[in-house]
Amino acid sequence: MSDAIEIAEKLIAAPSVTPATGLVFDVLEEMLAPLGFEVHRMTRGDGTTGSDEAPVENLFAIRQGPAGSKHFAFAGHLDVVPPGNGWTSAPFAPERCGDLLYGRGAVDMKGAIACMVEAARHVPQDAGTISFIITGDEEGPALHGTRALIDFMRAEGHQPDLCLVGEPTSVNRLGDMMKIGRRGSVNIWLEVAGVQGHVAYPHLADNPVPKLVAMLAELDALVLDEGTDWFQPSNLEITDLEVGNPAHNVIPEKAKARLSIRFNDRHSGASLSELVAAIARKHGGSALPIVSGEPFLTPPGTFSQIIADAVLAETGIIPEPSTTGGTSDARFLRSVCPVIEFGLCNATMHKRDEAVAMADLETLSRIYARIAQAALDS
Amino acid sequence: MSDAIEIAEKLIAAPSVTPATGLVFDVLEEMLAPLGFEVHRMTRGDGTTGSDEAPVENLFAIRQGPAGSKHFAFAGHLDVVPPGNGWTSAPFAPERCGDLLYGRGAVDMKGAIACMVEAARHVPQDAGTISFIITGDEEGPALHGTRALIDFMRAEGHQPDLCLVGEPTSVNRLGDMMKIGRRGSVNIWLEVAGVQGHVAYPHLADNPVPKLVAMLAELDALVLDEGTDWFQPSNLEITDLEVGNPAHNVIPEKAKARLSIRFNDRHSGASLSELVAAIARKHGGSALPIVSGEPFLTPPGTFSQIIADAVLAETGIIPEPSTTGGTSDARFLRSVCPVIEFGLCNATMHKRDEAVAMADLETLSRIYARIAQAALDS
Repeated sequence: MSDAIEIAEKLIAAPSVTPATGLVFDVLEEMLAPLGFEVHRMTRGDGTTGSDEAPVENLFAIRQGPAGSKHFAFAGHLDVVPPGNGWTSAPFAPERCGDLLYGRGAVDMKGAIACMVEAARHVPQDAGTISFIITGDEEGPALHGTRALIDFMRAEGHQPDLCLVGEPTSVNRLGDMMKIGRRGSVNIWLEVAGVQGHVAYPHLADNPVPKLVAMLAELDALVLDEGTDWFQPSNLEITDLEVGNPAHNVIPEKAKARLSIRFNDRHSGASLSELVAAIARKHGGSALPIVSGEPFLTPPGTFSQIIADAVLAETGIIPEPSTTGGTSDARFLRSVCPVIEFGLCNATMHKRDEAVAMADLETLSRIYARIAQAALDS
Repeated sequence: MSDAIEIAEKLIAAPSVTPATGLVFDVLEEMLAPLGFEVHRMTRGDGTTGSDEAPVENLFAIRQGPAGSKHFAFAGHLDVVPPGNGWTSAPFAPERCGDLLYGRGAVDMKGAIACMVEAARHVPQDAGTISFIITGDEEGPALHGTRALIDFMRAEGHQPDLCLVGEPTSVNRLGDMMKIGRRGSVNIWLEVAGVQGHVAYPHLADNPVPKLVAMLAELDALVLDEGTDWFQPSNLEITDLEVGNPAHNVIPEKAKARLSIRFNDRHSGASLSELVAAIARKHGGSALPIVSGEPFLTPPGTFSQIIADAVLAETGIIPEPSTTGGTSDARFLRSVCPVIEFGLCNATMHKRDEAVAMADLETLSRIYARIAQAALDS
């Protein structure tokens, strides 16, 4: 028998820079099978069309409760971002030092998955159905990760009632924040074509740069919304400009820019794409949008209360329901059932010397067990 | 004895991609010496600090008239722009075909220099002093070209009364345009620094792009002037934009742009540099100007009338006095004496299959002889 700390160590010791396959999933399967879980592993992405299509492994595990019982799902990812340089210890050799356990994935999010396993051990099978929705590609393009798992669950008729994603949502101390929603994200490539020419003869040329500048000034001045009860105002950032003209006496023939918009549930990727495209057209340009995620919101209610109660019981604090920050796989799981994210402190995620307080792993295991139990009882 | 066509052929046959040295100057010296010219050749630029410092040859030739007579100068350049690909004939093997003489430099401006030599042959020595101010670097950085010649002339006490630059100023037919001035030119590099960050957390970053966009919008909206009696309005072009941010979820830390301003004699390089720098500072950015030339103007008067009379006598048309187009070495010679540019048709300059009508070489020789004679008589 292992506790959450030992499980986390075993997961960290299996290197799994995104996209993850193989060993790290073997480790998780070895933990779940003895607890009565039926484990399904599936590899997607055939590697034929570049790195976006590199093989990705996914795992769906389910322990069926009594007929008619509720189904509660834990979701997460076993892939990690590259460790980078400058670590004090080896990133894939977990090391306990003082109160902390160091290693890539300690908080994002092998530590949380270890707590989920430990929680599942403490929830009796007859309380209801528990599942694990675990992908090997959340940190990468996420084309063949959670989306493939959702397809599998639909095909097999597995429908959770509630889903908890174990992303590291806590900020200053374990339990201070949960994510009840996330903004959507769209990137838009803008381009204006002109006619090249010599700066001394501007009447023979058509400089695209002033058109792009006017377009960007109008886009930058947009107030997309004032925010909602649960969301910050939607935000547009101009993230790149490019002309690429080395000749200082030449009027260039093309000017480009790129936007990134993080948006709340007042908008959709499509509505913003059309808004930007209309402004681009007005200034003689074009817009190519790529929507990387729609927003999701699980408004405060039963599920958030279950989480808040569990956190309060174990930590004495009440988590703030937030919708800030980047995207997560909740953008996909929202189509399945209500989803909320709650997990470890995120201070060291994606950084060198990523570390988790070992006491937090024990506390989070108990919180997750309370949440699962209450969700199945609800 | 050669005529202008044969002289042009000999000059074209001496390859002289900028910066020019050696052979092409030998050819010119061999033409001028028998006409009574005292020839001074000087090489400048020691090649120690990159291509801008590559050695440049220059030639000053003078045939002294009687004491107290006027001094008329022909100015020009023997360097040519690189031929590029796709020529029908070899660019440095002059070829007569139909009415045309083909070769790099045929119009810009070995052809005109040939006409100057032919003209000098037809102006009697006792009419006055004639000089040739010929550089091997007009098409390049021009650091060690005409400026070095002016230094030499000052040191030796040679002070022309009028100077004709033989740039190809004619447009549709020989004689239709002379340049009585040229606009100045300044390029300005703009930069705004910000603070890099994640697009999901814009409050932790400071995006420099909107500041640059606002700066450029203000600069693009500037009306520098409405033009003058002799000049087009000054014109500002944004010639480059650069952020260079490959990550679509990252707010960049720096944004850059480049301007090119062609300006008339209402401004100076310094006044425009300060104007742009003030706007850049207002938007949190900085500006680095490089002035490549101040404007010059030789207002219509005696000299332009001498040229117009000569052109009318030989072609039947009156040249339009213009100040359009790019810069020339007149930007330096303006400090010596009144200067006007007049030369061949510019349709093929800097292009492949550069060619001059052989009849134009003969006509231009006669025009140049009339101008020199009248200038010395004035």
